Amino acid sequence: MTELRRDPIIGRWVIVATERARRPSDFEAEPEFSSSGFCPFCPGHEKKTPTEIMAYRGDSPPDGPGWEIRVVPNKYPALRVEGELDKEGVGIYDKMGGIGAHEVIIDSPVHKSQFYTLPKEHVRDIFKVYRERVLDLKNDIRFRYIVVFKNRGKSAGASLEHSHSQLIALPIVPKRVHEEIAACRSYYELKERCIYCDIIRHEISAGVRVVEENESFIALSPYAARFPFELWILPKRHSLNYETEDDGRLFQLAELFANVTYKIDKALSNPAYNFLLHNSPLRTDGNEHYHWHFEFIPRLSKVAGFEWGTGFYINTVSPEDATRYLREIPTG
Amino acid sequence: MTELRRDPIIGRWVIVATERARRPSDFEAEPEFSSSGFCPFCPGHEKKTPTEIMAYRGDSPPDGPGWEIRVVPNKYPALRVEGELDKEGVGIYDKMGGIGAHEVIIDSPVHKSQFYTLPKEHVRDIFKVYRERVLDLKNDIRFRYIVVFKNRGKSAGASLEHSHSQLIALPIVPKRVHEEIAACRSYYELKERCIYCDIIRHEISAGVRVVEENESFIALSPYAARFPFELWILPKRHSLNYETEDDGRLFQLAELFANVTYKIDKALSNPAYNFLLHNSPLRTDGNEHYHWHFEFIPRLSKVAGFEWGTGFYINTVSPEDATRYLREIPTG
Repeated sequence: MTELRRDPIIGRWVIVATERARRPSDFEAEPEFSSSGFCPFCPGHEKKTPTEIMAYRGDSPPDGPGWEIRVVPNKYPALRVEGELDKEGVGIYDKMGGIGAHEVIIDSPVHKSQFYTLPKEHVRDIFKVYRERVLDLKNDIRFRYIVVFKNRGKSAGASLEHSHSQLIALPIVPKRVHEEIAACRSYYELKERCIYCDIIRHEISAGVRVVEENESFIALSPYAARFPFELWILPKRHSLNYETEDDGRLFQLAELFANVTYKIDKALSNPAYNFLLHNSPLRTDGNEHYHWHFEFIPRLSKVAGFEWGTGFYINTVSPEDATRYLREIPTG
Repeated sequence: MTELRRDPIIGRWVIVATERARRPSDFEAEPEFSSSGFCPFCPGHEKKTPTEIMAYRGDSPPDGPGWEIRVVPNKYPALRVEGELDKEGVGIYDKMGGIGAHEVIIDSPVHKSQFYTLPKEHVRDIFKVYRERVLDLKNDIRFRYIVVFKNRGKSAGASLEHSHSQLIALPIVPKRVHEEIAACRSYYELKERCIYCDIIRHEISAGVRVVEENESFIALSPYAARFPFELWILPKRHSLNYETEDDGRLFQLAELFANVTYKIDKALSNPAYNFLLHNSPLRTDGNEHYHWHFEFIPRLSKVAGFEWGTGFYINTVSPEDATRYLREIPTG
């Protein structure tokens, strides 16, 4: 059983593994992905994953080949669905049980697929699967927040090469999300406008940090980007919840993501990257002024001591330069 | 000229390089340290660094050999001493000039020295140099905060192998420090006690997360550690400012650091690591209840998308296990 512990100073919750004592020798350098190795996510190997939660497949039976997108529980979950929250004080500290869900969304049967190598409809279906899983997990009243994310490449934290995304449902709202929501609320109280809507308007008019846009979505390099080539992808009209977006808008999101990931791969020679959905909490009131979005971060530079210790980042590529480089790449 | 930009949502300031447009190809994988390469920090190469700011040396003249510890400006500074703050609004955003100081403390003439291979008095002198530089830079009224830190190893962000520390003086107080200070203040208002003092008392009595202690200092694995083998090193009695510590106490700090780094190197096979001084801001009132400390983080695991996107960390080694492993290592 893992547990959630709260830092008494900062208020940050951390998932601490208590069940499996990793020995120091477990931290020897991990090998790079082996291209000849066995892949548990490839078709025909369905029995090597836990039983599937859902799949987009024709008439083929579950846990066999014939699927296009497949969702399975993470085999080594950070949190587990079974059990009670068991909130408890321990001396001056606070903890609760490691309750949650940890799922893997296998993007496609193709081992190395990218959003820009798949048909647009297939990419839209990946975004539909995100939506369906959020809608389903929302029914569990123990969960407060759902994070959908992708780690691509070893240095982005991926442990398998086969293209996949992940989802974690949490019994608390992460501190970072709390901060974003509080900022949206106080900005709205001051100005009666959404701060993300204001940023989008400002960026479209300024024109120097917009990498890509279509009718419904925009990809921009934020003014105070922490990392070189950091991007935010946002719905252009105000929208609180990802899961309320319809299929037509998710198709446009898929088109934008395909273009952005193509440009990033061309500009930066297929870097490791992460992207992560910043969505509204599941059932907290008072977040009406939030605006869901994705944050996209290529993992180009090592985050050094200064950065993690202060939360103060040094970005060696200005957002305006990053935007210019990416814009110049034709998507054909 | 670099500039400081403020994220309009979270309020986080970021240093953005605007002078030197790094091209995407600059991000190709960097090679590991070459052991045969030229080292600008080794004795005899003093002319390869900017003019020294201070040094512990006998009668030898500046910028030549004969030193024990040497402080020089960073050749590629994140911030510069010259210029004005030029605080400015840019549309909906806020920025200021990249004013500050960025210095390198070369720990010893020996290319690869560790705190536990140097004489204790020499390590104390390194901590004295930190103190002297903080006291000197405090006189510049443009600076609000000074960060002292060490990056050891490529994956911790070090660009040179020769043992060194760094110092950055900032014109703002980092958000993370603001949060720690606010937490200390509200805890004190509630209980009339320092929260770090309470944690130290609790940990000495609980006994399962104390790695090392002497008369004046304690090294512990924090209850809600973000990273495997994360450690905090704190003065046992309440102390607001690092720079008020006397030579005798800095000798004890040196002893503790020597033991802790020895154990970390033995347990984890010389991992990359960062440590960072969390000190009181330079001139803000209202931080009387802060308690300075070092945070020490071995860089063992890749920080994945989930972590950076939410500030919610998954730690695969419990602080109690980490403490047990480290305690079992004899320091002789």
